[in-house]
Amino acid sequence: MKDSMKEQVIEMLKERGVSLDDIAYLAWELQCPYNSDLTVDECKASLQRVLDKREILYPVLTGLVLDDLAQSGNLPEPLLSVIRRDEGLYGVDELIGLGITNIYGSVGLTSFGYLDKMKKGILGEMNSSQQDGGRVTTFLDDIVAALAAAASARLAHQDCVKKEKVV
Amino acid sequence: MKDSMKEQVIEMLKERGVSLDDIAYLAWELQCPYNSDLTVDECKASLQRVLDKREILYPVLTGLVLDDLAQSGNLPEPLLSVIRRDEGLYGVDELIGLGITNIYGSVGLTSFGYLDKMKKGILGEMNSSQQDGGRVTTFLDDIVAALAAAASARLAHQDCVKKEKVV
Amino acid sequence: MKDSMKEQVIEMLKERGVSLDDIAYLAWELQCPYNSDLTVDECKASLQRVLDKREILYPVLTGLVLDDLAQSGNLPEPLLSVIRRDEGLYGVDELIGLGITNIYGSVGLTSFGYLDKMKKGILGEMNSSQQDGGRVTTFLDDIVAALAAAASARLAHQDCVKKEKVV
Amino acid sequence: MKDSMKEQVIEMLKERGVSLDDIAYLAWELQCPYNSDLTVDECKASLQRVLDKREILYPVLTGLVLDDLAQSGNLPEPLLSVIRRDEGLYGVDELIGLGITNIYGSVGLTSFGYLDKMKKGILGEMNSSQQDGGRVTTFLDDIVAALAAAASARLAHQDCVKKEKVV
Repeated sequence: MKDSMKEQVIEMLKERGVSLDDIAYLAWELQCPYNSDLTVDECKASLQRVLDKREILYPVLTGLVLDDLAQSGNLPEPLLSVIRRDEGLYGVDELIGLGITNIYGSVGLTSFGYLDKMKKGILGEMNSSQQDGGRVTTFLDDIVAALAAAASARLAHQDCVKKEKVV
Repeated sequence: MKDSMKEQVIEMLKERGVSLDDIAYLAWELQCPYNSDLTVDECKASLQRVLDKREILYPVLTGLVLDDLAQSGNLPEPLLSVIRRDEGLYGVDELIGLGITNIYGSVGLTSFGYLDKMKKGILGEMNSSQQDGGRVTTFLDDIVAALAAAASARLAHQDCVKKEKVV
Repeated sequence: MKDSMKEQVIEMLKERGVSLDDIAYLAWELQCPYNSDLTVDECKASLQRVLDKREILYPVLTGLVLDDLAQSGNLPEPLLSVIRRDEGLYGVDELIGLGITNIYGSVGLTSFGYLDKMKKGILGEMNSSQQDGGRVTTFLDDIVAALAAAASARLAHQDCVKKEKVV
Repeated sequence: MKDSMKEQVIEMLKERGVSLDDIAYLAWELQCPYNSDLTVDECKASLQRVLDKREILYPVLTGLVLDDLAQSGNLPEPLLSVIRRDEGLYGVDELIGLGITNIYGSVGLTSFGYLDKMKKGILGEMNSSQQDGGRVTTFLDDIVAALAAAASARLAHQDCVKKEKVV
């Protein structure tokens, strides 16, 4: 049952309304200006490889659990309020995102920042639902942005290797 | 002459067509959604404090010197070509940017990534001039984005402290 | 009551058997090879300034709360077991430490790594007690190492500024 | 000729008196407390995989070139003096090291800090030669420490995966 943590993370994302296709689509949007032949399916395959890495699953899991604990009120104050209102200076959510993107080099960093700030696609929906008093997504949006940036950076590195092999 | 390194960095930015006002304006754009009373002058004052820090000046200086050495051809291959064509996977320019924004916590990180990806304002001009065969700005654009993100994050932290004092 | 979060963090450290003097002593050990006049009191004063920063308090608080939740069994599996056994590949504790030391530039980074690996002084006691089935200190030891590294790096930067003013 | 950058980096390290065996030995020392069956050859094989990654080669190459430029006097002041005297607050050498270790998760970070601070083995020799007015190794020692930490962290991750497969 070696993949149980991966499956659990995918399940937790799904419960929060985020499918692997949603994340793969964000990765595709990041990468398609550089590679016009790229398909969303290739991005999804890249995301699968990203989620094979234990060093990625651990920060993802930690962030999602913190969102849950904030949602259910099972954190002490003042941490509970800080996470519930997605306090702009909190910064631990960005640290978690950084821990995820770093695995594919510093080039994923700017994509992560861009997605997180633009709140594109599924990220936009998450953010507005939190502001309406919905589910706590303080960590979720950074995690989704970071996973998309990681899947995209992974493809960028591979694409580069492929071109060199052809030449 | 304690400020010589700061003055030298400001001078180097100016030679490259980047004034402190340009950077302050980018910082203002980042921060104004959260603080509608903020002026560009306050952002410029914040940028001045950012540039007082030696740990910020060192990476800025290193990046600008690498751009210069690439411009004048005084780097060995393959590093020369990698920096000249702003190779997307190089990543050392993002590391330098990260070293600058980190000083103000991880919240500056997403602003840095956003500006760097969006190539806003002065960043857009720099980028198109490099693509036209103009000056090498591989490090410059990350440095400008990171300084704006740092000046903005510094204000965000101060604003938070002020509000708490009022309460 | 603006300092309530700072006071709460100091209290939480105390409950875990870590005083500000313990951390100040680690900072002094790091910095004294470079500044033989330095006193532990100056290190403690530096630590106080470090703990004035909200961007430091947030990751500290998050890590200590995660240790508590692991201690009391209030985390879902597999995260509970991972944190309880201080799984070497977990990495989120190091991310928290990195978020703390980064505020004082990348020079604090190696001190943090050194202390964390050497488990010096109070860190050594914490670590052996966890291995004996005592309190969960997965985040605590990284937090203590990072705070000491931050207090020490802060002094290094100040010392440098002072020397330049004299010259 | 796809491996030219890798071969060039290995050659540059060799010219500076650092063999892959030296780095593999440091990695082995880091990892052997956790895996008593590990051989230095396995560490060397891991280091070879680390050096296959473009995102690792770029920061290594940049640091080594900066050491060379400082050695030959081909950098402008004050950067030349800062790098030549391995100024403790410079911090860009640590950023380069961080960029290398990050690729294998945040667990390599503390090993990097530890090696860099302890100046173990070959690192000790490099450091004392610089203090005797020998070759500039400001970046070299961080690069060697970071490569050893990366090779070691890579093995730690693999070992974990293997154990799970057995179970």
